[in-house]
Amino acid sequence: MAELLVIKIGGGEGIELDAALSEIDGLVRAGTRVVLVHGGSHETNMLSERLGRPPTFITSPSGHTSRRTDRETLEIFEMAYCGKVNKGIVESLRHLGTDAVGLSGIDAGIWTGTRKNAIRAVDESGRTMIIRDDLTGRVERVDAGFLRLLLDNGRTPVLTPPAMSDEGVAMNVDADRAAAATAAALGADELLLLSNVPGVLRDPEDRGSLIEAVSSLEEVREAAKGRMKNKVLGAEEALTGGVARVVIGSASGASPIADARSGAGTVFEGAIA
Amino acid sequence: MAELLVIKIGGGEGIELDAALSEIDGLVRAGTRVVLVHGGSHETNMLSERLGRPPTFITSPSGHTSRRTDRETLEIFEMAYCGKVNKGIVESLRHLGTDAVGLSGIDAGIWTGTRKNAIRAVDESGRTMIIRDDLTGRVERVDAGFLRLLLDNGRTPVLTPPAMSDEGVAMNVDADRAAAATAAALGADELLLLSNVPGVLRDPEDRGSLIEAVSSLEEVREAAKGRMKNKVLGAEEALTGGVARVVIGSASGASPIADARSGAGTVFEGAIA
Repeated sequence: MAELLVIKIGGGEGIELDAALSEIDGLVRAGTRVVLVHGGSHETNMLSERLGRPPTFITSPSGHTSRRTDRETLEIFEMAYCGKVNKGIVESLRHLGTDAVGLSGIDAGIWTGTRKNAIRAVDESGRTMIIRDDLTGRVERVDAGFLRLLLDNGRTPVLTPPAMSDEGVAMNVDADRAAAATAAALGADELLLLSNVPGVLRDPEDRGSLIEAVSSLEEVREAAKGRMKNKVLGAEEALTGGVARVVIGSASGASPIADARSGAGTVFEGAIA
Repeated sequence: MAELLVIKIGGGEGIELDAALSEIDGLVRAGTRVVLVHGGSHETNMLSERLGRPPTFITSPSGHTSRRTDRETLEIFEMAYCGKVNKGIVESLRHLGTDAVGLSGIDAGIWTGTRKNAIRAVDESGRTMIIRDDLTGRVERVDAGFLRLLLDNGRTPVLTPPAMSDEGVAMNVDADRAAAATAAALGADELLLLSNVPGVLRDPEDRGSLIEAVSSLEEVREAAKGRMKNKVLGAEEALTGGVARVVIGSASGASPIADARSGAGTVFEGAIA
């Protein structure tokens, strides 16, 4: 069976995709199966601003942050993630020669799960409140059969949120954890989570404090702050789901995928306490 | 073989999709294979206005009009067509119970063809000019194998422009003619082209002047004005491509699809001179 990689590239500010897309085209030409998952947060923020609806974020009592997603935000989110970013990536990959298929998690029910119907959030003054109408949730099931159908036919899926809730509405989900669930469902050989940071840092202000080979999950959990928390959770979920190797690394440079595969970043592999 | 319908629903102002989507869900449940093609022109116009880039249109010397599509317009177009409208339709169909898959024509190379590298356009003062950088073209090939793969697996494709040019860029294409090419490539039993007009009118100002059963292509060609020209061209292309029946009808009312199938609208069928 050909090697299968799930590669997630973040949608944060300053992330250039050209180098990674060119590497993906090379991998696919060489016979590797690739599922690409992408974000679009920076494009969504810019579009929201231009439309006069600046984005707002929710912070949970444990310190996770997520986009406050009402119906209008979801539509803006879909325009940025599924429209501009997804189709831009598909166009670039096809231009290179990869037979890419851009899909959101709602298409064919690729990603399904539960919407959070009561989110505890902490406001600026430290008070906890409950938000009930947020269109946010978690991917719990992946239609691996549909993705295999595409891969078996030589197509390269390019996936992005939203996902479909069990009650039948589109919902924003964390793309790192969706990528992890996808890697686990497909039995991927490797999961790469690439973004605009070099990996998990012991000190978020010091890019030299990178945790390289992970020997203790406790250590990376404690070190992970902000958006990195979801990447570490995703890495753990992928490992638990049977993925042999996860790398949290950088999307920058001339060969971010080769770099991550050769160990640049925070590597989860083998026996970890 | 199960009956196969290609249904195009326009994206003009005032078109409500709920009734048609509910009918599609009923058809799919009853075992009919459906490929839905949709537009998004009104959403694109509104988004363009909100982003401070009001849409502009090109009129050809023969009177066809099309959206002037530079790179930024293409991105806005993708946000509206592939993001908001496509994902909204997929969400609604899935909520009803249909296993919908939203795709643009660039995904999997479903729609490919030639970009127009020199468009003759007439400006307001009647002068003809040549536009070379427009991202507009025509669907010449349809990957029917990919669409059959989806249909054979119980999925309902929901397709929308853009398409992929042979030079490897995304391009705006007329969705009526793309739907016609799709119906021909799939050997569809019937093509419905539904929009906010009741069919081809002898007098565009008089909704009572509807041409019902088409007996002369010359007559409908002459009667078709503005955007209706592309629908008539699409109908002719589908007939030439082997589709047995084409109806240009209204997307309005409680049962627009059943109405069109039972003959409400302009019907192209059988021997036409």
